[in-house]
This record gives sequence, C-alpha cells and structure tokens, in this order.
Amino acid sequence: MMNRLAARMKELKAPVVVGLDPMLSYIPEGIKRKAFAAYGETLEGAAEAVWQYNKGLVDQIYDLVPAVKPQIAMYEQFGIPGLSVYKKTIDYCHEKGLIVVGDIKRGDIGSTSGAYAQAHLGEVKVGENTFAPFGEDISTVNPYLGTDGVKPFIDVCRSFGKGIFVLVKTSNPSSGEFQDRLIDGRPLYEWVGEKVAAWGEEVRDGKYSPVGAVVGATYPEMGEVLRRLMPHTMILVPGYGAQGGKAEDLAPYFDADGSGAIVNSSRGIIAAYRQEKYASFGEENYAEAARQAALDMITDIRGAVPALQ
Amino acid sequence: MMNRLAARMKELKAPVVVGLDPMLSYIPEGIKRKAFAAYGETLEGAAEAVWQYNKGLVDQIYDLVPAVKPQIAMYEQFGIPGLSVYKKTIDYCHEKGLIVVGDIKRGDIGSTSGAYAQAHLGEVKVGENTFAPFGEDISTVNPYLGTDGVKPFIDVCRSFGKGIFVLVKTSNPSSGEFQDRLIDGRPLYEWVGEKVAAWGEEVRDGKYSPVGAVVGATYPEMGEVLRRLMPHTMILVPGYGAQGGKAEDLAPYFDADGSGAIVNSSRGIIAAYRQEKYASFGEENYAEAARQAALDMITDIRGAVPALQ
Repeated sequence: MMNRLAARMKELKAPVVVGLDPMLSYIPEGIKRKAFAAYGETLEGAAEAVWQYNKGLVDQIYDLVPAVKPQIAMYEQFGIPGLSVYKKTIDYCHEKGLIVVGDIKRGDIGSTSGAYAQAHLGEVKVGENTFAPFGEDISTVNPYLGTDGVKPFIDVCRSFGKGIFVLVKTSNPSSGEFQDRLIDGRPLYEWVGEKVAAWGEEVRDGKYSPVGAVVGATYPEMGEVLRRLMPHTMILVPGYGAQGGKAEDLAPYFDADGSGAIVNSSRGIIAAYRQEKYASFGEENYAEAARQAALDMITDIRGAVPALQ
Repeated sequence: MMNRLAARMKELKAPVVVGLDPMLSYIPEGIKRKAFAAYGETLEGAAEAVWQYNKGLVDQIYDLVPAVKPQIAMYEQFGIPGLSVYKKTIDYCHEKGLIVVGDIKRGDIGSTSGAYAQAHLGEVKVGENTFAPFGEDISTVNPYLGTDGVKPFIDVCRSFGKGIFVLVKTSNPSSGEFQDRLIDGRPLYEWVGEKVAAWGEEVRDGKYSPVGAVVGATYPEMGEVLRRLMPHTMILVPGYGAQGGKAEDLAPYFDADGSGAIVNSSRGIIAAYRQEKYASFGEENYAEAARQAALDMITDIRGAVPALQ
C-alpha cells in the first residue's frame, strides 16, 4: 500500500493528504439546517451534516490528491451515527479512487491490537463469513506499548497489503515531554524511529515498507534526522499550515527523488472558506474553496521540494 | 468518580474489575447458534452473541465487584454493530449499578483528544441539545503525546465528575522497549508517573484525583515505586491471572488501608468455564463459572492485602 501511495503521489506530483476532520463548527449553516430538518438536532442529524459536508469536499478534491485522512475522533464524538458516517466516508473515498488513511491512533497489546487491526485494515471472521468492518487502507498506530502493540498491525498489513503510520514525533507543542527525552544521549523519538525502520525492514517488499512514521512538520530538524534513520519509511507529516509548519521547512522530510513523505492539511483545506484568503468563495462554495486551498498547498509544497519542480 | 470507585471497592471489600473483553471463541456455542439463527453469520449476528454473553456475565457478577472494564477493541472488531453493543453493555452495566471503565486507550492532541473525551466521558452539543455518545465513567488514555493529549480528558473529567487511567507501565512483555528506557537515570514510566501525579494534583478533590494510572501486575517492583511516586493516584492493575500476575505480588500496589488499586481480570473470569478448574460448570453455565472465578479472585486478592482481611 505504501508503494501504491508513493506511485500515486508521483503521478499527481502531489505529496498531500487532506484531513477529513469535520468539526460541526466548520460545516456551512445550509448543510446543517437541512440535516437537522431531516433528523433533528440529534447525533443522527450531526452525522448527516458531516456526511454531506464530506461528500462535497471529496467531490472537489479527489482528482488532486492521492489520499485522505479522516480523523476518527471527529466521528466518534457523534457516537454510533458518527462512526457509521466514518465508514460511509471511507467507502465513498474508495469509490472515488482515493487511498484512505484512518487516523485512529490505536494501540494495545496482543490479541487486542489484533482486533483493532482486523477492524480497520483486515477482516474479521464470523462463522463461515468474513467482513472488513471499516476497511481503511492505512492507519495510524501508537507505539507506547512496544512491539507487542505494533506487531499485530504489521501482521495484518502483510496479509492484506495494507500499511500503518506509527507515531514517532508528533506535531503538538508538548510532544517533547516524553518523545524528546534523552536515552543514552539520543531522544526517545529516535529510538522509536529505529524500531519503525527495523519493523518495516522485516516485511518490506519494494522501496517503502508497510510501516510508515508520523513526524510533525513543526520539528523540521528532527524530520531531517529521522529521514536518514528510516530510509525505507514513508513519513506522514502533520502540522502544516494551521499548526504552523511551513513548506520551506519540509524539504528534509523527502527523499532526493521527491518521494517518501506526504504532508497533511486538515482545517487549512476543509475549512478554507473561513480564511480571509478564500472568503470570497462564500460559505455555500466551501468545497470549491477547499479545492483552491488544496491546489495552493500542492503548489506550495512543489516549490519547496526541488525534485517536484 | 475515583473516590466513588474507592468507596465501592471498600464496601464490597473487592478491589476487582472484570474485563468484558469478549472474543467470539469464548462465547458458548448455544448463544452463537441462537444469534446466528436470528441475524445470520454477520457482524450483527456476532454483536448479538456478544451482547447475550455479556448480559449473562453481568447478571452474575454485578453484586460482587464495583466495576467492569469493557475493552472497546473487542467490539470495534465487529464494526458498527459491535460498537452498538459496546454502548448497550455500558448502559446495562449502569442499570446494574456498576462503574464502567472504558478501555479505549485513546490519545491525540488538542481538539481531537477533546472530541474523544466528549464522546466517552462527556457530552457533545448538537444545536440546542446535548448527548453523551458512549457514557463511560472512566476511560484509559495513552500518554505518548504529552500534556496536550491528556489535558482535554482531564478538563472533561472535571466538568462531568469522571476519571481516567493513564498508561504508565503496561503489563505486556515488550512494554519495557520504550517505557523502561532510562532518562537521567530513571525509567520513562517513572517520568510518566510523575506527570500523572502532577496532572491529578491540579484537579484533586478528595483522597484520589480523577487521574489514575495503569501499572501492570507483571512488574511488581515497579508497582511499588510507582505507588510511592503517585500517592493520590488510583492504580488500575491489568495482567493478573492469565497474563501471569500473582496476588502475592500485588500488595505493594495498595495503600496501607487496602485502597488505591483495582485489579483487572478478563478471560480468567469471563471464560472461566474453559479452565479445568471450572470445567464442571459446563459451557451453558459459563456465567455461573464466571461468578465462582470472581469470588475466588476476590478471596485471592484479599489474602494478599493485609488491610482487606
């Protein structure tokens, strides 16, 4: 899956993933009004609004970018109806040819991690039948529990041709509290990065292993070190735009041929219409504003990565 | 919530939580047959079997223990129908007076962690209405992202009188890969434990703060250190029984008055009928076997903690 992602990024010259992280406050009033009229001001109503909003966004961006990254928390907050729309969004993105990165940050031990992996990337057996409950192509995974927590995901990746992005260095301000602490003179995130590279090497089949890494755009000097430490690892880079990461800092995350990293933007694209720069689109044209913001982001990233010019 | 949990543990003299982690393979054939007859060999059928199995278990143990801990991965593996039964199980346990610890191990940053916290411990607003999408009393949280990831959960705990258990030292064999690495001469789990104590102190109202810790039964010497480091922290102790943790090792996790720690057992109780010791109950009396196993576990723990004798 990581090599398929790399190929599609190259084809589109767009190492960009759009975060489908719908806050109710981002959704245009017109969409909410309609959804609430049909389902009331309920979890079902909120989920319907999210679905219509997502559909509009996906229709406008599916030909520009290789992948989307729905953040499951934004769906889970609306309970079962929200999670149903998470699944519906995944299916719709697949219809449109997009690769889907489930930003689920799950991680547990043994059979429990196995259950998460089956739910999201693999299949579950019920009697004589098998089902893919959520069916993402790639998911994010938390490494705090060590190999026991990650290995079941890797096994499922191997069986089903899927991928994972393991949290290595996250983009948030307090990520350093634990991740930057020095162990034998080197920060924890480097030790995690080395594990990611080693886990991946065991199952690699192609330039990139199925085991990718999350490295925030907000820490470019660490991105540079981690790129070197993990030569066959696809890097998912959150934190561009709204969180402060700039394109000119991102070159070190990429390989010399312009592959190896994919940059996420969520609200910078999906809620672009709320920015002054795109305000002229108006709320009702939120999806067209998102398309323009995605195009601008692609141009911005291309400008910063010599091999993409 | 942690002080309510402590009070109920004391009342029952049972610092025990039953893990409701239903694997399909644990569920008696008779229950599965009925569920599949009604819903087919589908996700709905599997979820129905889980629900009937859980109901039987809860009916037999609700008067013995203060709390249950459903592991959401075991429900998530059956997709939307599975998650609906997760919610149904929470509601049923509440009807029976049990405190519900959602073993969700979520953790993200900022508004995303906030969305998880609202989904599981708080409320979400839709128009003029508010909903508690899952409604657990306490949830487990992953600390890898630092304060940004945990703080939104603590804010929700404060608003809604709920609690969290932060992963400090997990019970699995590879937990040491990162958690035991030395930082300035002390293992990472101690630094995380100190943070847990500090986060909790800011919001403490009573003997125990709303911010608890997960410390595996399989590492008793670490449990002893962490108990001292976190004097107002309720400790959730997984790993007893099936994973190898023994009652005699657990005394150091408790305060001198016999409070401060709650020990989890999952398959050792819910699938007791599959053990030689309880085989005479037979598959159809799986719930009675679970009751006996819970009673035996309570006796075992009481025997190891002087203040509970």
